[in-house]
Amino acid sequence: MVQINDNYLKLPGSYLFSMIGQKVSTYAEANPDKKLIRLGIGDVTLPLVPAITSALEKAVVEMGQERTFRGYAPDLGYAFLRTAIAKHDFQDRGCDISADEVFVSDGAKCDSGNIQEIFSVDNKIAVCDPVYPVYVDTNVMAGRTGTYDVTSETWSDVIYMPCTKENNFAPELPKKTPDMIYLCFPNNPTGSTIHKAMLQTWVDYANQVGAIIIYDAAYEAYISEKDVPHSIYECEGAKTCAIELRSFSKNAGFTGVRLGATIVPKELERGGVSLHALWARRHGTKYNGAPYIIQRAGEAVYSEAGKAQLKEQIAYYMKNAKVIRDGLASAGYTVSGGINAPYIWMKTPEGMSSWAFFDYLLEEANVVGTPGSGFGPSGEGYFRLTAFGSYENTVAAIGRIKKM
Amino acid sequence: MVQINDNYLKLPGSYLFSMIGQKVSTYAEANPDKKLIRLGIGDVTLPLVPAITSALEKAVVEMGQERTFRGYAPDLGYAFLRTAIAKHDFQDRGCDISADEVFVSDGAKCDSGNIQEIFSVDNKIAVCDPVYPVYVDTNVMAGRTGTYDVTSETWSDVIYMPCTKENNFAPELPKKTPDMIYLCFPNNPTGSTIHKAMLQTWVDYANQVGAIIIYDAAYEAYISEKDVPHSIYECEGAKTCAIELRSFSKNAGFTGVRLGATIVPKELERGGVSLHALWARRHGTKYNGAPYIIQRAGEAVYSEAGKAQLKEQIAYYMKNAKVIRDGLASAGYTVSGGINAPYIWMKTPEGMSSWAFFDYLLEEANVVGTPGSGFGPSGEGYFRLTAFGSYENTVAAIGRIKKM
Repeated sequence: MVQINDNYLKLPGSYLFSMIGQKVSTYAEANPDKKLIRLGIGDVTLPLVPAITSALEKAVVEMGQERTFRGYAPDLGYAFLRTAIAKHDFQDRGCDISADEVFVSDGAKCDSGNIQEIFSVDNKIAVCDPVYPVYVDTNVMAGRTGTYDVTSETWSDVIYMPCTKENNFAPELPKKTPDMIYLCFPNNPTGSTIHKAMLQTWVDYANQVGAIIIYDAAYEAYISEKDVPHSIYECEGAKTCAIELRSFSKNAGFTGVRLGATIVPKELERGGVSLHALWARRHGTKYNGAPYIIQRAGEAVYSEAGKAQLKEQIAYYMKNAKVIRDGLASAGYTVSGGINAPYIWMKTPEGMSSWAFFDYLLEEANVVGTPGSGFGPSGEGYFRLTAFGSYENTVAAIGRIKKM
Repeated sequence: MVQINDNYLKLPGSYLFSMIGQKVSTYAEANPDKKLIRLGIGDVTLPLVPAITSALEKAVVEMGQERTFRGYAPDLGYAFLRTAIAKHDFQDRGCDISADEVFVSDGAKCDSGNIQEIFSVDNKIAVCDPVYPVYVDTNVMAGRTGTYDVTSETWSDVIYMPCTKENNFAPELPKKTPDMIYLCFPNNPTGSTIHKAMLQTWVDYANQVGAIIIYDAAYEAYISEKDVPHSIYECEGAKTCAIELRSFSKNAGFTGVRLGATIVPKELERGGVSLHALWARRHGTKYNGAPYIIQRAGEAVYSEAGKAQLKEQIAYYMKNAKVIRDGLASAGYTVSGGINAPYIWMKTPEGMSSWAFFDYLLEEANVVGTPGSGFGPSGEGYFRLTAFGSYENTVAAIGRIKKM
């Protein structure tokens, strides 16, 4: 008789965004006359820029002609895209990353969920608290997190690194030594980030204790301040301790297009085993490459036209971020984020719980946000709003919140 | 200190097709004047049909306009595609599969590699021998296969079901009871298939012992004979024991487009746990949906124009299959397959090993095929040719082989 993977049964509740989706549908069905404004899920709303649609159109034509048709893509990505990523995202910033250290994929969510597979289930993971749920949930599924305590909403074998107002939403080095450290800067959900010197202390620490940093750089395009690293490979020694996840979702509006990349340096090894080789084997065995036309779209992100058009797109969202941040602050809320990230992190008023504030905002202002507690216990009492709405909706939402 | 997943170190050699790729490049570099004909990897060569490129073009336009832009797709697939798959691939054949039992993905390779995650690592798997390497290798990575014996080229904890000339390349029910049974019909690599009554015995067996059948139907569009099932759900009771993998790669030329689907019936459960719910959770946590434009291309596969155009495309490949099968037979080779599948399975001459024949064919005829032994020990002494080349190349390749 087949047995199921009972680690799945340990997962409490359903995935955060599914739960929000359900609450919102229920409210919308019961209140069909209300115009909801969604600033919850971090999903982009602006259409693909012309440089990208042109590249897609051209690739579609190629796929329809015998001479230019492409079947299976190379497992690890087409050279044209790997080269473009290596050059523009790394080499141009002084990071010594070569094209064959870039693994193209269908998105950073998949990669951030799959990367743990190449590590032993006996490793201890450390995560920021609050945190993007995928890091923790995929480790639960793998059996790496111990038992769940309902009261504290924590896993016995996970090392939590609280990110709160007190430490400016930047984690401190953990007291217990972890084996795998998940870091995401600019941060989802808090919108915070850290300066290069601080990231260097993490790199030094990981090299010292033999840990691996899984560095999620999905929001790097939103960095506006100087001295904030766009890649962990800006730090010295990162190539011997860090894997970096890159996404096209937020810097190019690809949430529905699906493209990402994971960087595994060739010199990254543990116990004499190359992690680059392990990830290549994983990719080659369980993945069959990102679609050709999508990889061509990814290439267009780095064209002169693409860069210029996407700079405007990001500026549009960051204008929204300013509206939210300034609007909430002027209404007396405590806010952070929104300067180097499309996320604004606010304190809920008068000790209201995150989910209570979610319901309150949904019902009173018809605005959908994300409860901070959905990202971990230290997120309780916080709430996330995203800058990915339209400008008009963002202004309207803040207007409604101010009136509450 | 982080530990790696040392199951990866147990994997012998590199992935079959990577190894072929390396051998072919080495030969091609050393012999730049030789015109190689590749009938090795099962990759399609005909361009996408007009119904599909039109759907792609239309979807690209939608993605470039604010009103019609789509961000994150629903985790499990767009309703328009799930509905089309459920109707055309199942309901129209009398199989009671509903749209919400269809999970859209970026391909059957990923799904066939990932599906084992929802099961315990203590389960025993049964596979045909020879077999598509992904089924076994992904279970090795998960730690489900015991130790590898170099001499017999088998894993201690895998139940092998030999498929040889003696049993007409159709597996017999295993003597040891497995928990997870991988079946693929029409078969890759042997090109064989089984009749409905025989598949029914597998369904009855799985229901009786509580096993799960993972049924790979990637090649169903190539079935030309009657009474050969296109889906396992044509058998009574399959919904309580079978998960089916569907691919668009071979029936619509999507190897570089990437689209697949996995069917998990809602009534499929073990130990009171719904496998549908587990797979939904896996999909929702580790996957972010197939690209919108690709899902629209998938929908076009089921349009009247798409169906007609793809029927011609498959007929083209099957004409090649006939050329290979008849040509090899007339040259005195023992061949099977090629009637309900795009694969021709041939006995190597005079007790030559599969890899020896690979080298011989590469060097003497400049034709690339796939060594049968790469698919498992019972594949030794066999060789796979595919019908996915151009008609001209296929005729030329067979001409060269006949001359050898």
